[in-house]
Amino acid sequence: MKVLITGIDGYSGWPLALHLLGRGHDVVGIDNFVTRRRVKEVGSWSATPIPSFPRRQAAVRELLGKEIRFYRGGLADWELVRSVLEKERPEAIVHLAEQRSAPYSMIDVHHAVSTQVDNLTGTLHLLFAMKEVAPDAHLVKMGTMGEYGTPNVDIPEGFFEVEYHGRKDTLPFPRSAGSWYHWSKVFDSGDVYFASRIWGLRTTDVMQGVIYGTRTPEISHDRLLTRFDFDETWGTALNRFIVQSILHLPITPYGKGDQRRGFLALEDSMQSLRLAVENPADAGQYRVFNQFDKAYSVNELAETTQRIAAEFDLHPTIEHPPDPRVEAEQHYYSPIHEHLPRLGYRPIRTLEEGIRQIFRDLLRFHRRLEAKRHVVMPTVQWRVTDSRPLLEAREAAHHPGPAPPPSAPSEPTTPQAPSS
Amino acid sequence: MKVLITGIDGYSGWPLALHLLGRGHDVVGIDNFVTRRRVKEVGSWSATPIPSFPRRQAAVRELLGKEIRFYRGGLADWELVRSVLEKERPEAIVHLAEQRSAPYSMIDVHHAVSTQVDNLTGTLHLLFAMKEVAPDAHLVKMGTMGEYGTPNVDIPEGFFEVEYHGRKDTLPFPRSAGSWYHWSKVFDSGDVYFASRIWGLRTTDVMQGVIYGTRTPEISHDRLLTRFDFDETWGTALNRFIVQSILHLPITPYGKGDQRRGFLALEDSMQSLRLAVENPADAGQYRVFNQFDKAYSVNELAETTQRIAAEFDLHPTIEHPPDPRVEAEQHYYSPIHEHLPRLGYRPIRTLEEGIRQIFRDLLRFHRRLEAKRHVVMPTVQWRVTDSRPLLEAREAAHHPGPAPPPSAPSEPTTPQAPSS
Repeated sequence: MKVLITGIDGYSGWPLALHLLGRGHDVVGIDNFVTRRRVKEVGSWSATPIPSFPRRQAAVRELLGKEIRFYRGGLADWELVRSVLEKERPEAIVHLAEQRSAPYSMIDVHHAVSTQVDNLTGTLHLLFAMKEVAPDAHLVKMGTMGEYGTPNVDIPEGFFEVEYHGRKDTLPFPRSAGSWYHWSKVFDSGDVYFASRIWGLRTTDVMQGVIYGTRTPEISHDRLLTRFDFDETWGTALNRFIVQSILHLPITPYGKGDQRRGFLALEDSMQSLRLAVENPADAGQYRVFNQFDKAYSVNELAETTQRIAAEFDLHPTIEHPPDPRVEAEQHYYSPIHEHLPRLGYRPIRTLEEGIRQIFRDLLRFHRRLEAKRHVVMPTVQWRVTDSRPLLEAREAAHHPGPAPPPSAPSEPTTPQAPSS
Repeated sequence: MKVLITGIDGYSGWPLALHLLGRGHDVVGIDNFVTRRRVKEVGSWSATPIPSFPRRQAAVRELLGKEIRFYRGGLADWELVRSVLEKERPEAIVHLAEQRSAPYSMIDVHHAVSTQVDNLTGTLHLLFAMKEVAPDAHLVKMGTMGEYGTPNVDIPEGFFEVEYHGRKDTLPFPRSAGSWYHWSKVFDSGDVYFASRIWGLRTTDVMQGVIYGTRTPEISHDRLLTRFDFDETWGTALNRFIVQSILHLPITPYGKGDQRRGFLALEDSMQSLRLAVENPADAGQYRVFNQFDKAYSVNELAETTQRIAAEFDLHPTIEHPPDPRVEAEQHYYSPIHEHLPRLGYRPIRTLEEGIRQIFRDLLRFHRRLEAKRHVVMPTVQWRVTDSRPLLEAREAAHHPGPAPPPSAPSEPTTPQAPSS
């Protein structure tokens, strides 16, 4: 099957390319490397050293004997999107080319606007190009479980039966997101749903939980590593907890720490996306997958990290800074996830194993973490409209002169508690 | 009360300014005149001759003895939005400055993208500027009943109690819009709701039905007239039915004609918006009003128009071209609208009276309609991604040489049935 991956250079895009190649699929990619640039802009880098894209292609050629065709560019370029689809006529399109950071979208008005505008524009361009030149292709669109928020009822997969004033209908489950970024994914879902209805496109909207991990079976060599972000803006809470442990900093779950979210190992996400690709939606079908394995509270993540850290002779404390986000710190959380198991999904990796593997990989690159230790602690505030001064103050404090050497002191430091 | 009206030069914005001035409020406006330009681009104009904005200001000064302060510009300009709010510190902001045409958004990919991007960006800029420099202001945001679609259950005002798998919660009612434009309003609603929650802003989201009419009590002189669009892109179905009657064309309800929508007279819309302004939402409250008077089917509109046309010795036939839209042609429709009556809303104008008044006004300007008779019939197709060739062919067919004289033949012509 020919599969186009938008955002192929990213954390999920790269291992998905390797996984699909391993299954014998033909892989084409597009990327504009904006994540590499933006991570650099916040003063950070990937914990894992990742080669340039031409070197990635060469590694795939030399180690796996496969080719990845690649187009450099962004989905904001309508002519490019249309011409790539026209030339390649992919059977499936996995759309991962979006701004993916909630804290980034909360920095200020310009980051909020660009997140929503860029994500919406890219998705619309793909949908129109599909209709015009690849109407039988199947779109697998990356969304997030965060679109649903945390309602006090079970969360179905996209749709549910409503009974209201004695009448019934099957309707989209109400969305209630928690950042400008998460709302951009809600908006995408609306556009994908509508395009399916008016043009008969095949679409799968993936409400994915938080992914963790550095490895899939296909990442068999350091030249094939995917990126791993740990800074406040681009890294997830779990990523930061592990890096905090390695840097002898306290682990910092926000607020009470009872916020629950769905989680998924990187290789289980690849398995899920591959199942979606290999089992396309019908023409005109808008299919929603709640794609995660288990729900954990932030405290459970912190405690599991602390426990596994001890295996590596690391002994982080756990501290609770005030929550900079606007979210319920204690809530019901019970999303349904039955569609993927019906297609054959079986979890491969447990949370403990995943965390252990991340520790093993990151300890090899601990000098890269130490060089960027100041980017791990939270600065962006959800309740203010402009966090730039806070970010700039942090940068200034850490770069008064030359960058700290890799052998910077490793004593625990107290994180600066965000003002709430 | 000091009220800022964004889109003050528009169909609703202008009579709202007059109505609020009449109630003794202080009115400030902003507009970039994009609707004037876009109506011209599709080869049409307002049926009512409308003065330039400086002449509108002069008419208000001379006829009503009042002043309207005005800023020329669009909400895409963040610095302008912020500086207007900072300088004026309005107590209420009525946000009408959006691309408001569903067919316009369906023309092609670029119109879809610009509709969603421009509407979202303007709303985000307003929300951020409010939080930064006018956090106590009350935002009255124009949305549309079209955000809800046509579910097979009653439509509540924004929120409803969900019972699912034995648990309960109060959640946003699911949205399911029918054009890229209508989705842009759904997205706005998400952003306004979120801004209320994180920043404590006062907001009212107005799900307005279709407005009709040429008059409010304050439009006492032709120099004070508001615009009236009748072309396929910018005019509503009812507007086109009346103009078709005057031009001796058949009235053309799409498909079966049993599509039901909520309607509201222009002066009742002004009453409703004024009630929202004078009764602000609480801090942190996101309030939703379903703002319409009665629901009618398209056939009821066509038949009422036909009946009232006869009073003016006009005898249009009714024809049913295939529906170019993607919508249910027969469906349940029962939206609840209780919030505005609780604030004192009482309908002033019936549909029959409204249509009669429109006929009276438009017959005075019938030469302006005759000069543009080719723009009334439908061309834009919902099921194709690019209607530009159809629009261009229509333009070419009607402008091979000089424009037709006002005394062009007035026999009925058969509308070109759109291909489905």
